[in-house]
Amino acid sequence: MSIKQPYVLFLGDAPDPLAAKVAQGIKDWRPGLSVGQITLPGCNADMDLQNISVKEAVSLGAKTLVIGVANRGGIISSKWMDVLKEAITAGLDIASGLHNLLRDEAELVNLSKKFNTNLVDVRVPTVDYPIANGIKRKGKRCLAVGTDCSIGKMYTAIALEKEMKNIGLKATFRATGQTGILITGSGVPLDAVIADFMAGSIEFLTPDNDQDHWDIIEGQGSLFHPSYSGVTMALIHGGQPDALILCHEPTRSHMRGLPGYSLPSLEELNDMAVKMARVVNNNVKVVGISVNTSGMTKDKAIEYLTSVEDKMKLPTVDPVLIGTSRIAEQLANF
Amino acid sequence: MSIKQPYVLFLGDAPDPLAAKVAQGIKDWRPGLSVGQITLPGCNADMDLQNISVKEAVSLGAKTLVIGVANRGGIISSKWMDVLKEAITAGLDIASGLHNLLRDEAELVNLSKKFNTNLVDVRVPTVDYPIANGIKRKGKRCLAVGTDCSIGKMYTAIALEKEMKNIGLKATFRATGQTGILITGSGVPLDAVIADFMAGSIEFLTPDNDQDHWDIIEGQGSLFHPSYSGVTMALIHGGQPDALILCHEPTRSHMRGLPGYSLPSLEELNDMAVKMARVVNNNVKVVGISVNTSGMTKDKAIEYLTSVEDKMKLPTVDPVLIGTSRIAEQLANF
Repeated sequence: MSIKQPYVLFLGDAPDPLAAKVAQGIKDWRPGLSVGQITLPGCNADMDLQNISVKEAVSLGAKTLVIGVANRGGIISSKWMDVLKEAITAGLDIASGLHNLLRDEAELVNLSKKFNTNLVDVRVPTVDYPIANGIKRKGKRCLAVGTDCSIGKMYTAIALEKEMKNIGLKATFRATGQTGILITGSGVPLDAVIADFMAGSIEFLTPDNDQDHWDIIEGQGSLFHPSYSGVTMALIHGGQPDALILCHEPTRSHMRGLPGYSLPSLEELNDMAVKMARVVNNNVKVVGISVNTSGMTKDKAIEYLTSVEDKMKLPTVDPVLIGTSRIAEQLANF
Repeated sequence: MSIKQPYVLFLGDAPDPLAAKVAQGIKDWRPGLSVGQITLPGCNADMDLQNISVKEAVSLGAKTLVIGVANRGGIISSKWMDVLKEAITAGLDIASGLHNLLRDEAELVNLSKKFNTNLVDVRVPTVDYPIANGIKRKGKRCLAVGTDCSIGKMYTAIALEKEMKNIGLKATFRATGQTGILITGSGVPLDAVIADFMAGSIEFLTPDNDQDHWDIIEGQGSLFHPSYSGVTMALIHGGQPDALILCHEPTRSHMRGLPGYSLPSLEELNDMAVKMARVVNNNVKVVGISVNTSGMTKDKAIEYLTSVEDKMKLPTVDPVLIGTSRIAEQLANF
């Protein structure tokens, strides 16, 4: 799966900035990638890009209109259709991570056939992934694993990629979810891959590379989350990680979506993830801990990070609060 | 997914008995389920059922012709087509676990529409499974986990179901693979389920039941097999097992299909499986060990079983050699 670049970001009628978080991610992490933004009346999100028309996007070189907005239920709004049709007619591809698929919209499908453009639903795998073969690969891989889902694994990985590049290391963020794929333009929509091919899809995503190159793999789910643990396991065994980062959110009272299930401790996560990763790489090392402290005051957050670092003897950061440089250093000296 | 019963078993032109192992499984484990067998010239398999025609199968009450034979590559042989078409025309459903799908054979599809019969590809999920919710279910569940794939987990589970019923316990074998689904007529083709719904499909397969009822869940893959460990993990977390059975094959030199990957010890499997199962059921217990000793002489096998039992302090059986009664007793006294 790969999306043609550069993009024009479609913000639609986003009622608030949060509704446009996909667009925000693209703007934040790939700042040069978008030629402008397209909004509809009532839009309350702004990526600080120039407001342009479809025609202007094309003349600025855009190849794909990315739907950077989500509404309740992940449906494709009827209000968006005029712009989407105009974009296809002007020769642009459309990319979307919405639950409802572009390919199920007959009008868009017919138009894209007529104008020979692509509708890219990043939730749907388009590759026949192999079954994992477990063969040792060249290059190095780092995987973020979490005590729960939605705990900052993607943010950690993409922030780490940026930091590593800043200090001159070879690093590639490897997306495994919709938002990551839209941000980078490629990846594996792992939660939609067929069971037998999950680990193989991650081997496919992170092939042989230079010995000093790091793939920073976006984590999914959690080994301790009963709904999605199988997906996490496939990431660990398909990813063949040399380095693991433990991700945590200390204010969460139970596993996401599962009242009655408490989060494991960082020690438990450490033990289990290392044991499982050793099956494919006996030299795997945990290189740091990434904590999402957004639910704490800054003082409390610093105190918490220090206490975790003392207890776990591992560099402990909040990527938003203090950045990932201490973890990047670990990988530089790996 | 459910297959109408009774069956007529189609053995085709099976070159040897092994090619008809699906039919053999149905005959062995559900002896009253098939009204007869249909063979073609050159067939060297025999289920010890009466040889009948499609017409006779219908008059004996058959509802489904089950393709009980596989050839190299799992394709639907052109030699079989006349019988398959005759069966559909006579009103029979067709069920198949082959890699090539009935639904991709235009002639069969058109005919089945015309005669209003079903083509059941048991490799393809037909249910929109839910995402697992982890809610505690009534009744009890036992899951077979292995040190490797293809190590006797299905055989162990279905033999245990039979033994439990023999001694008056409530037990249901829950199939998670093609052969098991064809044998029992229902189940979840787990390796073909989409990643996000794997654990949910197992919750769906093993719903609330009587407090003294046991679901005996067919295992898949292995926590230690890099290609399929995610599938196993979903079985453990979706299955919410009360009891685990450890399965092993002592003569195997490496993980199936993965030269260079050695099997874990039974202790390692025990530790990992129990730790992971405790996430969903803190009271989980390992109730026995099932060893496939078919690669050993009988004397060596008995010696091996005894040594494992001494070391692991768990009832250790070979279901073929000495049966599963000692494990069934464990569940009776659970």
